Amino acid sequence: MNQKLRTDAEDIARSAIEAVKPDEAVKRALTGFRPEGRVFLAAVGKAAWQMAQAAVRELPRPVDGGVVVTKYGHVLGDIPGVACYEAGHPVPDENSFRGTEAVLELTRNLLPTDTVLFLLSGGGSALFEQPLIPAEELQDVTKQLLACGADIVEMNTIRKRLSGVKGGRFALYCAPAQVEAVVLSDILGDPLDMIASGPAAADPSTAEQARAIAEKYALRLSETAWGCLDKETPKTLDNVRTQIIGSVRELCRAAAERCRELGYEPVLLTDRLDCEAREAGRFLAAVLGTHAGEGKKLAFLAGGETVVHLTGPGLGGRNQELALAASTGLAGLSNAALISVGSDGTDGPTDAAGGYVDGDTLAALKAAGLNVYEVLADNDAYHALEAVGGLIKTGPTGTNVNDVSIGLIGEA
Amino acid sequence: MNQKLRTDAEDIARSAIEAVKPDEAVKRALTGFRPEGRVFLAAVGKAAWQMAQAAVRELPRPVDGGVVVTKYGHVLGDIPGVACYEAGHPVPDENSFRGTEAVLELTRNLLPTDTVLFLLSGGGSALFEQPLIPAEELQDVTKQLLACGADIVEMNTIRKRLSGVKGGRFALYCAPAQVEAVVLSDILGDPLDMIASGPAAADPSTAEQARAIAEKYALRLSETAWGCLDKETPKTLDNVRTQIIGSVRELCRAAAERCRELGYEPVLLTDRLDCEAREAGRFLAAVLGTHAGEGKKLAFLAGGETVVHLTGPGLGGRNQELALAASTGLAGLSNAALISVGSDGTDGPTDAAGGYVDGDTLAALKAAGLNVYEVLADNDAYHALEAVGGLIKTGPTGTNVNDVSIGLIGEA
Repeated sequence: MNQKLRTDAEDIARSAIEAVKPDEAVKRALTGFRPEGRVFLAAVGKAAWQMAQAAVRELPRPVDGGVVVTKYGHVLGDIPGVACYEAGHPVPDENSFRGTEAVLELTRNLLPTDTVLFLLSGGGSALFEQPLIPAEELQDVTKQLLACGADIVEMNTIRKRLSGVKGGRFALYCAPAQVEAVVLSDILGDPLDMIASGPAAADPSTAEQARAIAEKYALRLSETAWGCLDKETPKTLDNVRTQIIGSVRELCRAAAERCRELGYEPVLLTDRLDCEAREAGRFLAAVLGTHAGEGKKLAFLAGGETVVHLTGPGLGGRNQELALAASTGLAGLSNAALISVGSDGTDGPTDAAGGYVDGDTLAALKAAGLNVYEVLADNDAYHALEAVGGLIKTGPTGTNVNDVSIGLIGEA
Repeated sequence: MNQKLRTDAEDIARSAIEAVKPDEAVKRALTGFRPEGRVFLAAVGKAAWQMAQAAVRELPRPVDGGVVVTKYGHVLGDIPGVACYEAGHPVPDENSFRGTEAVLELTRNLLPTDTVLFLLSGGGSALFEQPLIPAEELQDVTKQLLACGADIVEMNTIRKRLSGVKGGRFALYCAPAQVEAVVLSDILGDPLDMIASGPAAADPSTAEQARAIAEKYALRLSETAWGCLDKETPKTLDNVRTQIIGSVRELCRAAAERCRELGYEPVLLTDRLDCEAREAGRFLAAVLGTHAGEGKKLAFLAGGETVVHLTGPGLGGRNQELALAASTGLAGLSNAALISVGSDGTDGPTDAAGGYVDGDTLAALKAAGLNVYEVLADNDAYHALEAVGGLIKTGPTGTNVNDVSIGLIGEA
């Protein structure tokens, strides 16, 4: 293993993740946030507790009320002045509705001088929900949509209309108060109306489209549900200001910054990688192989979220597969390495954040009696990387803004 | 369709292919080639006839003898002073041996002042062969190697030793004459000892390695064959000068040059792409999507040879699949396009060289009732691209130096 590249690669990956942790990111977002009137805090999503805690610490005075709605096991302690709810994810349950009710209670009858600090993170779609139809019917409609092959945009067009808080309706509910939204994005491209179904984002979809989708797929809906589809969501919202504080773009930017500090010239390839993990690894290895002989220290960055198709019973994750697949193309290169990590620190169902490979990895795998193609067919990247010291472990990071792969070319 | 991008993309692809055509490339390679003594021409490979014709035209005086050995149907006319043989490919046949014999006859008993102009192109491994064991045994060994899962390096290590002309032995045979080798490369990375098994290239593999491979896979070999394995191939050749005239690197370089002329800043991603075609398309679309909003005219280049796995009965080729798969990621972008072409002009079993897609393609496919995922599952990219005017047709080009994909970002 190339120890110098290994050290640099892990340093860059860890620095990038550090920069998109909720605490740090919320702190940066609230610099200069000094509202005159009352401040109510509403935090929903998987990172809600961390974001709320960071916000309360950063604000100059206590909030006038606050509610956190997050996933079971995600409340890690008391936050002064904030009531914390744990609820079901990815399927909403009674506690989701109860937590949401508490948020709505908090933000009832606000004044124009009030501010709602709305801290949103991934998972908010299930955790923050007030169904306009019975919960059972909502579940049934979701099942119908999944079964008929509707795409995610079509599903959200329907679901926003069956919810009292999605599709911008929460922001409408808060009016005339100001909503200061701080969003930790887990969706590529940061579509604000899609993150947690956009409680504080104007909705580009129309009632007409919703009805067309329901008819296209012949959805079975109650009279109430049909009525909901016809009710328009807000197309503009003049009481909302939104900051995206964590996103895969931030992750890439932070990685690039650290690369530069370590003397690598960063080249951002993409911040929306979405192809098959192992093929992305081969593509990146081909990029590194092409440029390894140029005598320049370079860092190629690709952020996003690749996919894995399971064909075997092994252990692994998309970042581990991506890295392992690159080992073949990197074989024999003395100055090239690739690291790929998930910003949440848990890649697939493993205790690793991702993997690292370089020009020596393939030989090490062979020496351990492992064949890359067989390992990938088994989806067993974890054990293969473990055998050659290629696992990267950070522990859960408390954030979730997709993955980043960093290909390094060091000194020849 | 974005007509401006379409025109530019096709212009760039055609210019790149033009630059690696045997005629042009051989002409450039022979500029300044003015040998004093006799010149014998030996051309083997799929482009042998074109290369020989271009060479004879370019030389200041007639050759003192010449032989072409190419694939059936590839001799397109007489060449003054040159005997043309057509033979079996990819499996060598009697005519391969006969043609090879004619080359050896031509280059027997040469003088130090003589020059052998050796024009080599892809396919030469089957077309240029003098087996040192009976042809039937050679076929049997090849079958054994394929069946036991030997990799290409292992296979060539064995096969070079069973051949009278491979692994540098042809160059040795020509000594003391000079060999002026002009190579049109169809293998990624241009490994000279691998192109047609390197008749005029020093062989890095050793007799010891050959024996180890034969033992590892328990090959069944005759006494004669075992004897061949023990005989060393030349490790250095001091009578050979080699020029690589066409290669995917040249193809990329020519594409980049034309991009620059048309105002696009070229960015070479790789010249050795080897992953799954459709995933490469998605990767490239992600790259284009990331940079489309930067307000700069850019061209991302990726050369190589991707692979396709057949899962359906449709019609297509790797370049068509790559392009089609990119249409999803490009959808809605007004200033991004991707073209992917095979330099031989025949992508898969089709009459198209490749495909073109841009931000309007997905909508056009939908309007035609086509779903990209279904089309790819059917391996039917040809008909889908045909329906939306996305096929690129050049006709057979007479060259074969892999493929190039060009992603363009035009004015916003």
